[in-house]
Amino acid sequence: MIQQAMQALETVILDSVTSDVKTLHDASRHILEAGGKRVRPRLMLLSYLACGGTQIERVLPAAAAVELVHTASVVHDDINDHGVIRRGRPSVNALWGRTFALLTGDFLFTKVYELMAPYKDLNIVLSEATVALVEGETLQASAVKDNNFSRQVYYDIIARKTAALFRSAAHMGGDLAGADKTTVEALRLYGFNVGLAFQIVDDVLDLTADTEQLGKTSGIDIQQGRGYAVAYAVNGEAKGQAAVAEPSADPMTAIREKMLAGEAVKEGYAQANMLKQAAVASLDVLPASSYKDSLIELARLVVERDH
Amino acid sequence: MIQQAMQALETVILDSVTSDVKTLHDASRHILEAGGKRVRPRLMLLSYLACGGTQIERVLPAAAAVELVHTASVVHDDINDHGVIRRGRPSVNALWGRTFALLTGDFLFTKVYELMAPYKDLNIVLSEATVALVEGETLQASAVKDNNFSRQVYYDIIARKTAALFRSAAHMGGDLAGADKTTVEALRLYGFNVGLAFQIVDDVLDLTADTEQLGKTSGIDIQQGRGYAVAYAVNGEAKGQAAVAEPSADPMTAIREKMLAGEAVKEGYAQANMLKQAAVASLDVLPASSYKDSLIELARLVVERDH
Repeated sequence: MIQQAMQALETVILDSVTSDVKTLHDASRHILEAGGKRVRPRLMLLSYLACGGTQIERVLPAAAAVELVHTASVVHDDINDHGVIRRGRPSVNALWGRTFALLTGDFLFTKVYELMAPYKDLNIVLSEATVALVEGETLQASAVKDNNFSRQVYYDIIARKTAALFRSAAHMGGDLAGADKTTVEALRLYGFNVGLAFQIVDDVLDLTADTEQLGKTSGIDIQQGRGYAVAYAVNGEAKGQAAVAEPSADPMTAIREKMLAGEAVKEGYAQANMLKQAAVASLDVLPASSYKDSLIELARLVVERDH
Repeated sequence: MIQQAMQALETVILDSVTSDVKTLHDASRHILEAGGKRVRPRLMLLSYLACGGTQIERVLPAAAAVELVHTASVVHDDINDHGVIRRGRPSVNALWGRTFALLTGDFLFTKVYELMAPYKDLNIVLSEATVALVEGETLQASAVKDNNFSRQVYYDIIARKTAALFRSAAHMGGDLAGADKTTVEALRLYGFNVGLAFQIVDDVLDLTADTEQLGKTSGIDIQQGRGYAVAYAVNGEAKGQAAVAEPSADPMTAIREKMLAGEAVKEGYAQANMLKQAAVASLDVLPASSYKDSLIELARLVVERDH
């Protein structure tokens, strides 16, 4: 069921970005056909199925909308960060330039409205998450600019820019299956904690993995003065160890090496695992099913992935 | 009634962009408090009232949404065009820089979802217009890049980037007042033609008015190789006259001077007036009222304004 649904989702996603304006059509498909993990729509579909939902086609447009919000944000991110590789391909920015990348992101954001039109009240749920995402990105840019990246700021950033959208995906899945309030709240908590874990692991991988493995430019967080490693360096246990680079050394390489030598990676995974356990625990309210098992498995994979 | 409604609209607009993320809060208010003409929401509110609507507070969130779509697009435009003045103030781009301007535009786009959540089917109407707007901007950037700006391309661009949103505003106003299909269709036509006239006059003013008068950087169209003057020059009657600059002259100044000396301005106004008359004629289906008169007056002012 879930595999069929994920395949059907691809069609809904690609059909939603059809346009007679060639650049928008091509650039949208370029980034969407590259795949990506589709973890947010998968989480929504599994939440729906785990709550007993049977009309998967009713959920697909919302699942596509969540993926489009995420994709719009990465297209705009790559403008601001000068990211040249995304999902294993040249970024929209790299291929079409800044002006068209900005418009492609806008196009994806506006297509979300179209997809969400049938879901009256759930528009509030998704719009809260989308606003939070933009706020999180802005907090991140501000923290970098003002040089006040700390752990507390880091958690506020990832809660908004990543975990809020995961939470809304789980919420919508449960709600569309007719789940009761307690169950929807449990799914929201699951989504939120999975989202936090996902972002911490993402940031650790930015440190430990290379560009080929990630399918996007690696090491970009330290270069931009942000992310888990920087938050860890600024006020973690490793402060004296890692925050300051050797004089005359490349600061980026120096921070990276010290992070890898120290406890940062280990601590990042410890936190991600803790969040995964909390996420799984909140699924206790759901009846046993293969879909519930898949939600548990999804939480595990979010932490244990290598890219 | 309309004046009270327009005042109430300001509150709805400003309340909608509240955020604890200071940059988004400040930058959104900076651009929104600068005012602007508010012609799109005014057109929606007048359409609603002219169709006998009496619960203006039901229309205000949709009217605010239309203004936010427009504002998001100008904030992003100013990034791509390097516009430094907007609505008589420094642009968001000029004050906060490119990264924050991009995020502020995204923030405004995402706030539109929130405002539109109560309007189930009308989400389709607004999303079509918003997609068209982004498509129009993209066609424009492509035409400049490929150097194929012609009159036909010009009309396709302004139909999408401007007239579609005017059309959707009139549509939503009529629909929310419970107008029948024929009336809604007439209002759509009115909005579309007013929108075309608005953009042609905007482009002529870009040529004839100065930055102080416009409240935004003037002469930007010729500089960017687009707009009415360029379309006119490329395949209008004035082709030989205007398309090519004197050798060694500043091409921008040369095109501008030849446009002003020739028939371009006169022809632009002739077209705008024709569209205004078509717009007014389509209002025949509406019963006589002071609001109908105001719609007629709005069409006149769109053409006769000096900024």
